[in-house]
Amino acid sequence: MTDPITSRNNPRIKLAAKLRDRRARREQQRIIIDGVREIGRALDAGVEFIEAFVCEAGINDDQLPRRLAEKGCDIVVVNQSVLDKIAFGDRSDGIVAVAKPPQKDLNSLTLQDEMLVAVLENVEKPGNIGAVLRSADAAGLSAVIVADAGTDLYNPNSIRASAGTIFSMPIVACSSEEALSWLRQHGFNVVATRVDGAVDYTSVSYSGRYAIVLGSEADGLSDAWEGNDITAVLLPMRGVGDSLNVSVTAAVLFYEALRQRASQR
Amino acid sequence: MTDPITSRNNPRIKLAAKLRDRRARREQQRIIIDGVREIGRALDAGVEFIEAFVCEAGINDDQLPRRLAEKGCDIVVVNQSVLDKIAFGDRSDGIVAVAKPPQKDLNSLTLQDEMLVAVLENVEKPGNIGAVLRSADAAGLSAVIVADAGTDLYNPNSIRASAGTIFSMPIVACSSEEALSWLRQHGFNVVATRVDGAVDYTSVSYSGRYAIVLGSEADGLSDAWEGNDITAVLLPMRGVGDSLNVSVTAAVLFYEALRQRASQR
Repeated sequence: MTDPITSRNNPRIKLAAKLRDRRARREQQRIIIDGVREIGRALDAGVEFIEAFVCEAGINDDQLPRRLAEKGCDIVVVNQSVLDKIAFGDRSDGIVAVAKPPQKDLNSLTLQDEMLVAVLENVEKPGNIGAVLRSADAAGLSAVIVADAGTDLYNPNSIRASAGTIFSMPIVACSSEEALSWLRQHGFNVVATRVDGAVDYTSVSYSGRYAIVLGSEADGLSDAWEGNDITAVLLPMRGVGDSLNVSVTAAVLFYEALRQRASQR
Repeated sequence: MTDPITSRNNPRIKLAAKLRDRRARREQQRIIIDGVREIGRALDAGVEFIEAFVCEAGINDDQLPRRLAEKGCDIVVVNQSVLDKIAFGDRSDGIVAVAKPPQKDLNSLTLQDEMLVAVLENVEKPGNIGAVLRSADAAGLSAVIVADAGTDLYNPNSIRASAGTIFSMPIVACSSEEALSWLRQHGFNVVATRVDGAVDYTSVSYSGRYAIVLGSEADGLSDAWEGNDITAVLLPMRGVGDSLNVSVTAAVLFYEALRQRASQR
């Protein structure tokens, strides 16, 4: 336990506050995590923590600093003003932590017979990536591949929107070509969601290895996801709207696959 | 066509700008709508417009002012500075309009044999109400009942999150007791989503009149939605997370009902 930090200009605080910016996250190879739930889920998932800033006025979960310290994380007591400088928005639960970004590549994923993964291509809003991760976690997917990402994975908005599931769900960032090549190599059936898809998403039998591919709301999927071995599916749209939020589309498909698999047991 | 308004202190502009606040919307009995898509969908749905402020620098859809004028809406040309004062956030598409809030009560809903409605109880975030409306529109629901709302229906965040479907989807605000009484009176099967629900949502046969009832993420549903004639359902949660966004839960249930109904045709 080091001495409390009470100056917003403390170099360590300034370095942590910079992690709000993507460039600093890349340069420092660190990420910043707000919130008791999110930090707890990252800890459960084996994320390596560097330091945690804990407010001297109290924290929602007083066991968390002890658990972090046991894993070698440096616990730094700060006052509210200092915490406010590094916290994201108005919510910190009294703790903000700095960690190493979990890094996985395709070959680190554990292959299973009945494996369901999602691929997000070019989804530019971090909040949308996080929301899809939350849906993928709930439906029990094995992994999420983030292809041609327009953002970094561990943006604070992604972490928040994922409710911390971003740390427990295996996530791989790569190009669309790499993702497709890996999926083909390992015998995945590939379902691409398109507004002009030819097949209703409920007509597909999601047994065996399946990848559900989702694009951005604005641009849809690139040509990389066209091919004779790729099924273009659509969600029926019965109203005046012409699209759904990507995390909503994702959840409907994930849960349809889960429903079919559960009914086959 | 009146003279262009170039002063942010013009009384008409000040009155319109106040409509960002809930209290002013209630006092003036007016709502404010941003965006070409949202205004267009409201117009298509028969919403009654009072006035539209159009930027002299241009608008994304130059047919829209003409269509509004044909319906008796006063078109007011303003400069960018004035538009910025009344527009919501950074997006106005060059037009902001003032309209009368559509008001429906339960008895104005058209009853059908195979009718699917949603009930949202105590959903406090306007963005969540809008997102559920977007899902309900896509899945072809007949109506959305907003019970014990912690917010007003036509909050700018609700309108935006609904992508304008808030105007085409029949929406009724009432108490939970009124909603349940109306549903029982008209022979609806009532499905209440609860994290401790006893029945998997896929085990329900959604034929006939069905109401899918959703509560807030924080508090769930009130006791009003317990009873021998109400089925408490849950969505399986296979990951570390313990909940989903209400618009995601809603979409999964709506599309399961739609899937079952389509397969019975």
